[in-house]
Amino acid sequence: MTASSGAAPAARTVLQQCLQARLQVKPAEELSQAQFVQIDRGMVIYICFFKGATDDILPKMVSTLLSLRLCESDSGKMVSVLELPGSLLIVPQATLGGKVKGRAMQYHNNIGKEEGLRLYGAFVSLCEKELAGAAAAEVTVKHGTYGNRQVLKLDTNGPYTHLMEF
Amino acid sequence: MTASSGAAPAARTVLQQCLQARLQVKPAEELSQAQFVQIDRGMVIYICFFKGATDDILPKMVSTLLSLRLCESDSGKMVSVLELPGSLLIVPQATLGGKVKGRAMQYHNNIGKEEGLRLYGAFVSLCEKELAGAAAAEVTVKHGTYGNRQVLKLDTNGPYTHLMEF
Repeated sequence: MTASSGAAPAARTVLQQCLQARLQVKPAEELSQAQFVQIDRGMVIYICFFKGATDDILPKMVSTLLSLRLCESDSGKMVSVLELPGSLLIVPQATLGGKVKGRAMQYHNNIGKEEGLRLYGAFVSLCEKELAGAAAAEVTVKHGTYGNRQVLKLDTNGPYTHLMEF
Repeated sequence: MTASSGAAPAARTVLQQCLQARLQVKPAEELSQAQFVQIDRGMVIYICFFKGATDDILPKMVSTLLSLRLCESDSGKMVSVLELPGSLLIVPQATLGGKVKGRAMQYHNNIGKEEGLRLYGAFVSLCEKELAGAAAAEVTVKHGTYGNRQVLKLDTNGPYTHLMEF
């Protein structure tokens, strides 16, 4: 489940804890201002799918990411984002699939745009379902627009950055 | 050089582009306020060393991270942080070495504290040397305190999160 587990992964995620995170979901245009989504305490999930990824991996991905003890409670204990309970900000991040080639990054292993968009949407939906049962009303799932520039502002009390591959 | 390259890595880094990043380097105490370092445009390097890492890997790590085209110039071209030119914020991040064990994270492969501190210091010094020759006076290297909680605030125009292992 981590980078050193052998077989090429189907998905790569980077996780960071936040006190608040804000993401642009629609850039400013001539007649409209930029639009943003925001969460308070919770977890930012940066996600990238590789070629060959299928829906089969999504249930285990979501249950793992949401039930792993990656978050720090008020009392300093490590708990899951579901136990915290915290919100989720899901950020599509194709750059995570990059490989070094000379001085540039190449993305030949990344999934195609159409299939990536579909898997990303399914991942978000599954997260929403998992969090729907959460005790606290303020807990929410927000997400970026696939294919867009992810203008992000992050405020943490320690990001506790983790890498998780599936 | 990436997660799928086979042999267990000696170091793992996650890279994010920033417009501004601020990191606490000394927590508040009874008689003193918290202290922070801050960079403007540039790159945040989250870094974790594994058991067996030695000084040998540092020169290649630094030259790779600083010369790879990971940053977006004003004209939208991808350039290196040296070419931008941008600043560096280096954040020790032991959590990056985590492996899943049940619902918890384990860090058995992480380097020992003393050796990790020494390598981290040497990595920072090498980055400082590389950036010393930069054209722009405002370009700087800042870094977190090894072993501390990394209270971080990040403002981006798109983090372009990359994973790089060595």
